[in-house]
This record gives sequence, structure tokens and C-alpha cells, in this order.
Amino acid sequence: MSGHRIAVVGATGAVGREMWNQIEASDMAVDAIYPYTTERSAGTELDFRGQKISCRFLTEENLVPVDLVLASAGAETSRTWSPRFAAGGAIVIDNSSAFRRDPDCPLVVPELNRNLLTSSASIIANPNCSTIQMVLALAPLDREWGLKAVRVATYQSASGAGDAFQKTLHRDSRSILDGGQVPPRKDAPAFDVIPHIGSFDGGGESTEEAKLRDETRRLLGKEHLRVSATCVRVPVFRGHSEAVWASFESVPKPTKARELLIEAGILVQDDPERSIYPTARQVEGKHEVFVGRIRPDTVDSNGLCLWVVSDNLLKGAATNAIQIAEVLMEKGILAESTRA
Amino acid sequence: MSGHRIAVVGATGAVGREMWNQIEASDMAVDAIYPYTTERSAGTELDFRGQKISCRFLTEENLVPVDLVLASAGAETSRTWSPRFAAGGAIVIDNSSAFRRDPDCPLVVPELNRNLLTSSASIIANPNCSTIQMVLALAPLDREWGLKAVRVATYQSASGAGDAFQKTLHRDSRSILDGGQVPPRKDAPAFDVIPHIGSFDGGGESTEEAKLRDETRRLLGKEHLRVSATCVRVPVFRGHSEAVWASFESVPKPTKARELLIEAGILVQDDPERSIYPTARQVEGKHEVFVGRIRPDTVDSNGLCLWVVSDNLLKGAATNAIQIAEVLMEKGILAESTRA
Repeated sequence: MSGHRIAVVGATGAVGREMWNQIEASDMAVDAIYPYTTERSAGTELDFRGQKISCRFLTEENLVPVDLVLASAGAETSRTWSPRFAAGGAIVIDNSSAFRRDPDCPLVVPELNRNLLTSSASIIANPNCSTIQMVLALAPLDREWGLKAVRVATYQSASGAGDAFQKTLHRDSRSILDGGQVPPRKDAPAFDVIPHIGSFDGGGESTEEAKLRDETRRLLGKEHLRVSATCVRVPVFRGHSEAVWASFESVPKPTKARELLIEAGILVQDDPERSIYPTARQVEGKHEVFVGRIRPDTVDSNGLCLWVVSDNLLKGAATNAIQIAEVLMEKGILAESTRA
Repeated sequence: MSGHRIAVVGATGAVGREMWNQIEASDMAVDAIYPYTTERSAGTELDFRGQKISCRFLTEENLVPVDLVLASAGAETSRTWSPRFAAGGAIVIDNSSAFRRDPDCPLVVPELNRNLLTSSASIIANPNCSTIQMVLALAPLDREWGLKAVRVATYQSASGAGDAFQKTLHRDSRSILDGGQVPPRKDAPAFDVIPHIGSFDGGGESTEEAKLRDETRRLLGKEHLRVSATCVRVPVFRGHSEAVWASFESVPKPTKARELLIEAGILVQDDPERSIYPTARQVEGKHEVFVGRIRPDTVDSNGLCLWVVSDNLLKGAATNAIQIAEVLMEKGILAESTRA
């Protein structure tokens, strides 16, 4: 046997479908691939390299031995099933928030910390979508000038809340255009913007805002980095945008920042006088992180303002997970684990 | 003659209509009211207290003597016509950006600086919509703790760009829902968000971002206040939202901030655990400024985060202009000017 056996958990969800398609299009050797879904979607047939493959409901009796699991079915499903897959010898790349704070589970963006992908990892956490794009833009600047503090206001799309909310946004938008009334919906606010993503603790901060801080600290290896976020859902189907203020130990230069970002693989689109800056609709379907509006922070001479945009289902989720899988294969970690 | 003679310039625009309706509904004594529009809209009939009044194209020969002008037809029209009305003895309340930096023209939000409304004023500038709502939320906090710096990311509706853009947003949204393609439109971005309001100078800052800084400084009487804004157009018909970080000389307290804002007439809606915070759609048609998500800025122990929302066509424009007119009448300044 020369190929991998892969399970995709949440295969019919927004991120699951992207992961499925990327595996299919990749040059990964795949011996078998198993799509797991909710009971409602079980039986749905997915195409994979010319075959029809039937989705399975994720239960104990439906578990099959696999080498690699790509999980994107929410924190609750992950908490239950990712450890079981791992106990069966699989490496799990988990796209939920379930293991992101677990010190035994590396939190990985390959461009930043692929060194954490070792043979001892069994569950690898994929960071939050809004964090991945921001951290990729900040890391090269941090290396040059020493990041001290970050403030960020987000403009997050409905797809970040799950596949269903793109449909809700579609339906509610049409109702409003037709003159109808729709109730406020925080996850898909048609013609509105809502500062509520996730849930709220007593301190007035949302869980999404806490994730942005905690995961940024972990990914940059800066335990005490000061981060303040206001996370806002906007009526966009796909693609998150972020207005970022970053403060550094020394004085940053916009021109140098552009060079550093380009060297790091970020796509810089920054000529606002010619209406050149990234927007969510423009980056839909693209795998990179895009940055524009790079300029001095007029409040802090050690600060920069940035506008950071990425397709939240791709680099913010599916693409990052697939890249982790590819590094595991490249390093031979996945093969080793298969032989174990 | 006991009533006022009023001209409304731009009477069929988004703000003009609101001003017209508010004058009609007010208890102002009006002897005559003249709606001025573009040539295209001239002849359109508007209702006013039971009469039909025909819109006039703004030309030299169509000018009539009036006591009060409410102008909202863009900076170019204002630069040409507001001084002519003023030269004819009228007091002009000008809603464009044309006179906001002019030291001879008071920039007024009545709650903050009605003292500037004296008999020497002939053109009074109405501030920018995104500034009015932010400054009203910051002023009471500034008085208590001493405002040092402001960072703000805005979520501005299509109506802020003009009446036509609400229609564009409607039409483009429907095209996209029907599966069509529409080009990017910065003033009415259907299912997208665009960090471009106004135009760009060479420094990477938009004119809207410069207005937010310059007008905030002037209104708070803090010439050197540090303000950094990222202004973003969002697919909302009406109502601007703002994520604000405010830093003070001394340590602010969220509980005290709520009290100060309520005392100042701000409507505080701040219980995010129960999904209570203002949103653009919820405040549509309301005259007040709304604030929620009041919490410490985790970057700066002297900082607070706020979420500020208001109907940009009302307190951000028409309502503020009408309030200025009412103060002028209350103080007898408008009557004096009439007799002059």
C-alpha cells in the first residue's frame, strides 16, 4: 500500500467541501477517503477522482482505520471524535477551537511554525480564520521591528459562521430587497453589521475576540502580547477583512513593511489612489493573504495601519489544513505514523 | 410677517428630504419654503403642510430672499451658492465639507458648542456624519478623563455617499442574488466591504479619514488630539457603525462611562450576553446616538472600547442641521438677522 487513508469529518460543510476538493486536486496518493457528515447528510455522494463516495454518519460502528483525519465539524464533534481517531493511530488536523489552547496539540500555520510538526503530534490544531490571516501579515513585521500591541476591528463574512449562514444571508437579503422584514441574525446580518461573533463572557469580550488574542500570542510565541479586538459580522458571503493597528518596539516604515510582506509571500495590493486594495469579493477563491492600506498610525509613531483580507474558507481554514497535511507527508511523519 | 422664509438646497436628496420632513413636522413658523434641486429634479412637487411646492433649479435668476438656508447638495454646490445666500442676508446651515475647516464658519453640534451660534455667524458648518456620532460619544468621557488619542474603524452605509447609492446597493445586491456579476463599487459595495471613502491624498489617508480627525479636533477644542481612522463602506442602506478605541489621561471605568453617556443623552444599549448592542438597522429612523460594547481596551489600561451607531442621515446630518436652526431661532439670532 502506497497511498494514504483519509477521513474528512464535516465533509459537506463549507470548509469540509473545500478540503475535499483540495485533496482531490492535489498530488497526494490516496488509497481511500471517507467523508463523515451529520446523520441528515449521510448517504450524500461525493465525487473523488472519478469515484462516487457515500457520506457516513460519524458513529462508533462507522469508524474505519485511517492515517489522516481532517476535521471541520465544530468543537463539540471534535472533542468527542478527534481523540478517538488519534487513539486509533491517525494524525488529526482539527479545524475547530477544541484543541487550540491544549499545550499537547501544536497550533500551526506552516509558514510560521512548521517546526512544531513532529512525529509526536497526534492532534494538530488549525487556528481560527480571523487569526491566521492577521498573524501572517504581522509575523514578518514582528521579526523586523518587534510587535508590542495590536488593535483590530474585523469585518467577517457569514461563511465563517458555517455553511448554513451563507444561505440565510441569501434568503434574508432577498426578503429585505422585496420589502419584507427579517429578524436580526448575528451570524448572517442582511444589510446590517453586528459586533457579536461567538458568545460573551462576563468581561464584555466575545469568544472570537478572545481567540484572536490567545491564538495570536501562541502563534507568535509572545505570551504577553497586548491584543484588543472588536469582531463584527458583516453581510458578505465569503472573505474576512480586518482593520489592524500594530505597534512596535522601533519605528516601522511603510515602504519596508511592503517589502517584508512580499518576501513573506503576502500579496500586497496597495495603491489606494488608483483604487487598489484587497476586498473580500475580490479575494474569493484565492489561497493567499492580501494586505493593503499600509500607512503610519497617526496615533503612535511606532505604529502601522494595515488592511488584511483573505478567503476565510481557504487560507483561514481548508488551505491551511491541507498545507499542514502536505508538510506532514513531506517530512515523512504521516508515513511513519501509518507504519506504526 | 411672523414666520421664516427657508430655502432647502438639495431638497430631493437623502439628507434634503429628511430636513424637509423635519421642518414640516416641527413647530417652526414658516412663511415660505423653497426647495432647490438639480435641473433634472426641478419641477418635482413636494408636500409641505398641505401645499404642493415645486422644486427650482438653483440659478441666479431663481434666487429668492430667504432668512435661512439648509444646504445639502455637495461641497461644490455649497462653495458656489452658500456665500451668495449669505451675502443676501440669510444664515446658511451647510451640510457639505466646503466650510468645515473655515475659521470664520463655526462647526457646530449643538449639544457640544451651541455657544458658537452667535449673531455674527452667516455660514454654519454641519460636521461630517461619521464625526458627529463619534464626538457625541467621546465628549462626556473627555470631560471626565481627558481624551488623549482615538483609533476608529468605521462601518459606513451607502446612504452616506448619497441617495443614488442606496438604489445602486439595492440593484447590485439583487443582481448578485440572481447569480449575476457586478463591478466593484466603492460607494455601494454589494456583499463586500471597501476601505475607501472619499478620495486619497499621497499619504495613504482618505479624505473621510482626514475629516474624522480634523473635525473631531475642532469640535472637542483639542488641536493636537491624535486620531487614526480607517473608514470603510459596508453594504448597509442606512446607519453608520464605529469600533472606537479611546485613550485617556486617567483610568476610565466602563460603569462610570455608561453613566456619563446616559447623562449626556446618549442611548446606551450594552448587554452583549443578552445580544443587546446597537446595530445600523435597529437605529434606522432614530435621532439619537447609540453606544454599546463599552469595555476596557486590553492594550491600554487608560483606554476604553466603544461601539457607536447612529442614523447618518439624521443625527449625522439632517437632525443636527435642524437642531442648529432651532437654537438660532430660540436665541433670536435668526429673527435678528431677518430684521437686519
